[in-house]
Amino acid sequence: MKKVLKPQPMLFPMPAVLVGTYCDDGNPDAMTAAWAAACCHKPFCLGVAIRQNRLTYANLKAKGAFTINVPSTSQAEAVDYLGIVSGRDRPDKIAVAGMEVDKGEVVDAPIISSCPVNVECELIGELEIGSHTWFVGEVKHIRADEELVEHDGTLNISDLDPLVYATSVAQYWSLGKPVGKAFNMGKKIG
Amino acid sequence: MKKVLKPQPMLFPMPAVLVGTYCDDGNPDAMTAAWAAACCHKPFCLGVAIRQNRLTYANLKAKGAFTINVPSTSQAEAVDYLGIVSGRDRPDKIAVAGMEVDKGEVVDAPIISSCPVNVECELIGELEIGSHTWFVGEVKHIRADEELVEHDGTLNISDLDPLVYATSVAQYWSLGKPVGKAFNMGKKIG
Repeated sequence: MKKVLKPQPMLFPMPAVLVGTYCDDGNPDAMTAAWAAACCHKPFCLGVAIRQNRLTYANLKAKGAFTINVPSTSQAEAVDYLGIVSGRDRPDKIAVAGMEVDKGEVVDAPIISSCPVNVECELIGELEIGSHTWFVGEVKHIRADEELVEHDGTLNISDLDPLVYATSVAQYWSLGKPVGKAFNMGKKIG
Repeated sequence: MKKVLKPQPMLFPMPAVLVGTYCDDGNPDAMTAAWAAACCHKPFCLGVAIRQNRLTYANLKAKGAFTINVPSTSQAEAVDYLGIVSGRDRPDKIAVAGMEVDKGEVVDAPIISSCPVNVECELIGELEIGSHTWFVGEVKHIRADEELVEHDGTLNISDLDPLVYATSVAQYWSLGKPVGKAFNMGKKIG
């Protein structure tokens, strides 16, 4: 039996990431976002939904670039802080959170280098929806903590230990265990 | 030390969900997608990236509605199958996967009722990016397995046991454990 829930933007799981942008004055900002996804293969793109009253929105419009930084569960407190506090009120919020910052290698956006994975994106599209705009960035550069990178160039997901966001309960979660190989385990059927 | 990886649409974690649409002839189709996200608060929206050569793309263009169905890890094999096989080749793919289908309560799209959470969306926006189009749907109706719904209307995430997709390694994963409360644990800082 099913129960009807009130409409909400419900999806499980979502990533909890940091969106890095530069302010007008060159100060780096980072905002926590869970409404992000890969969204194109040619070219390789990530997208993120940003509310129009956010500092990140203004920065993105002005600079045309952003970074997506994937944190570990050990960084959950800092990640949550960066989602609660605006760079408009605390321009030093990244330092207060204990996070380190670097210049992007390729795009005009800061990397939150304390995060194990940093993806640099150049803005190539946007869609105004309502309260939020979906920003699409072409992936221009990725770097990851050396000890996470396997010989074949993939990442060790267990060691990455990415932070997961669960809507409905507004909780951060960890990843569990591998369930199976994609484009493979379904071949047993049909 | 960081290592540079080749550009790819890298983000952790992603949801592994089923996108439900009706074909021209009224046959229900379901496609596996990991490139999906919540993307607007007013109105409540989910978005999903669909490759333009997919049956789901044609269905979405014609019907203007889709469902996002959240599976459990126990359904991983069926989910993977539904991502490997096209409804163009196997119009009965949902039944072959052992999944049950219902009509949407509100929108012109089928619900994969075997999945514990079913979200009905009406198409309200789209952005052509490259190989993929980002489709935005307003959430019109949600239903969830009764035994997952807590007294306060939230979901029991442990029991839901949603399927997680990890890029780079192309693996399905399970969720682990709660790490902390969002908009709360960061208050200790600053």
